[in-house]
Amino acid sequence: MTHQAAIGLDVELVVLAADPGDPVAQVSASIVHGEPDADGLARLARRCEVVTFDHEGVDPALLAEIDRQGTPVRPGPFTLQFAVDKLAQRRHLQRAGLPVPPFAEVAPGEMARVQDLAARHGWPVALKAPTGGYDGRGVWIVDDAESAREVVESVRAPLVVEQAVPIEREVAVVIARRPAGEQVVYPVVETVQLDGICHRVVAPSGLAPPVERRALEVAAAVADAVDAVGILAVELFVTAGGEVIVNEIAARPHNSAHFSIEGARTSQFENHLRAVLDWPLGSTELTAPAVVMANVIATDDTTDPVAALPAVLSSGPVHVHLYGKAARPGRKIGHVTVTSGTVVEASRLADAAARLLSAPGGITS
Amino acid sequence: MTHQAAIGLDVELVVLAADPGDPVAQVSASIVHGEPDADGLARLARRCEVVTFDHEGVDPALLAEIDRQGTPVRPGPFTLQFAVDKLAQRRHLQRAGLPVPPFAEVAPGEMARVQDLAARHGWPVALKAPTGGYDGRGVWIVDDAESAREVVESVRAPLVVEQAVPIEREVAVVIARRPAGEQVVYPVVETVQLDGICHRVVAPSGLAPPVERRALEVAAAVADAVDAVGILAVELFVTAGGEVIVNEIAARPHNSAHFSIEGARTSQFENHLRAVLDWPLGSTELTAPAVVMANVIATDDTTDPVAALPAVLSSGPVHVHLYGKAARPGRKIGHVTVTSGTVVEASRLADAAARLLSAPGGITS
Repeated sequence: MTHQAAIGLDVELVVLAADPGDPVAQVSASIVHGEPDADGLARLARRCEVVTFDHEGVDPALLAEIDRQGTPVRPGPFTLQFAVDKLAQRRHLQRAGLPVPPFAEVAPGEMARVQDLAARHGWPVALKAPTGGYDGRGVWIVDDAESAREVVESVRAPLVVEQAVPIEREVAVVIARRPAGEQVVYPVVETVQLDGICHRVVAPSGLAPPVERRALEVAAAVADAVDAVGILAVELFVTAGGEVIVNEIAARPHNSAHFSIEGARTSQFENHLRAVLDWPLGSTELTAPAVVMANVIATDDTTDPVAALPAVLSSGPVHVHLYGKAARPGRKIGHVTVTSGTVVEASRLADAAARLLSAPGGITS
Repeated sequence: MTHQAAIGLDVELVVLAADPGDPVAQVSASIVHGEPDADGLARLARRCEVVTFDHEGVDPALLAEIDRQGTPVRPGPFTLQFAVDKLAQRRHLQRAGLPVPPFAEVAPGEMARVQDLAARHGWPVALKAPTGGYDGRGVWIVDDAESAREVVESVRAPLVVEQAVPIEREVAVVIARRPAGEQVVYPVVETVQLDGICHRVVAPSGLAPPVERRALEVAAAVADAVDAVGILAVELFVTAGGEVIVNEIAARPHNSAHFSIEGARTSQFENHLRAVLDWPLGSTELTAPAVVMANVIATDDTTDPVAALPAVLSSGPVHVHLYGKAARPGRKIGHVTVTSGTVVEASRLADAAARLLSAPGGITS
């Protein structure tokens, strides 16, 4: 999707791809084949004016080395550490006075701090691997000391323990930010999760205006605190009392703003490119009263999503993005976006389209 | 731009490219290198389920042969003949009862029919090469017999002579049509020409409603008459009296609907793919009250349009499409689209952006 955005700007997006079947290698002529190791990154950097990334699976130390050798990496190592390490992020944001859940570091196999946190804030608590989690992996919500002990003893690595915040809704704020701090902010969206995987993103969020303002304020403060460059996604918990608490941050184009391709005047992918190139940023205004994105998540029944396209395209004003990925169950293999007059109508169309693509003929409800 | 649209649908757009520097070869991994001759087309067809084209510089007989050998070519040879041969088009549309200018065929070097048409409809008249014209090339507006004779004697090839219709405005209607005739129609746009080259496309057209309805009616009848498949652009003259007359047709994605990438719910490029694949078509509704596209036309001063991007992107909500083409004076090397609340504001921004890209620093007005 970043390649699609780069084409119009005549920006050559050179991509380091480990696998010849990578989605981007299927559609772009500018591929450096290799692993994201020192050698691969050095070969990539030689062809680039600026280096950026679209996932956190790259060693920050290697990126820092590229940056030191003269090719700017944006966002830089300072920002990236908070996206890859939940503990570093919690500590940094807490020091900056930002709302994070009560948390503590848990040494490998050690229960004292878990019990201490539960004693102060009650069960359940959340145990999180500080690094490497994704789509619900690396997060355990545990209801009592016994369940917590099972996790702590089986993981045998450092963990973060947090209060399991009583969530009423989850929302996200996506910001595009230039090196000197100029930024644009996408409208607050509601993110609807199921088993730790985002199923649907809804704009506008429907939050009460004061809560929405608070979400925007917290997200902007996070962007400043981590010195974001490019896209920063700030995922937030909203409690029943309207309290806004930072959940996760991602320092790259993010699922919670995929809606922006058709649903905003400038897509997050174009704004990410513009931001890391230090170019002026584009409008984030919605293109319709309601925009809903639904992820196409592969199931055991997923065969060929393309075969479902005629049915999906005849179902209404549905924009389809298939990623050319193998359909392993639980994997996001595409998304759909619907622009509409109402959130209810857009959600109905988007959900139905995503279901059709993930299980052609398999689900009739 | 068709490649950008194909990516999301997971459609592999395999492109026959004569030059390794072709815009699409810069950005796509699916290139068949070769000329659009029998060999090149055969190698292309072997990799395709359906063959289409984005310019008329392919021998219709060769396309017909591909089609005969089992790979559907859409639009087919019947439609294509009317897009490549103005005389065949005029005759066919006239027989179908559609409004075309009074015209006659002119044999090489022969003046009688020119003088006959001028005697009946007055000077000036338009002389047109039946095939191969583009961006004003191959069209001569002549004011008297002497000027006409100069053209006829220097061309020494068949020509079409037509009444030079007294034009008040030029408009275009772009239609996407499936093989069985199901179609969607983009809003009527005004096309503002200078020296035979389209400079600006404006939606909505601002035509009086009865004239706009007539334009839509004529265009739909043209699409039926030529059995269009994929995108058909119908360029129309509008006279001071509100008469609507067919100017040209193009049977491919067309400059007059480039605005649709951001300015309509479904771009002409996506609808072209959907139409030639015989998939349901997408909404053509505008995404804003006013949408204006301006072409970036290279001048003697054009150097590096990318260098002008920061200035252009800071000028307002401007969407930029640069084509990666060498900047030969008079060549369209990109376009910009502005979505806005009013046509006046969108036109001002689009014109200024196009000027900046075509002559960075060279024009201050």
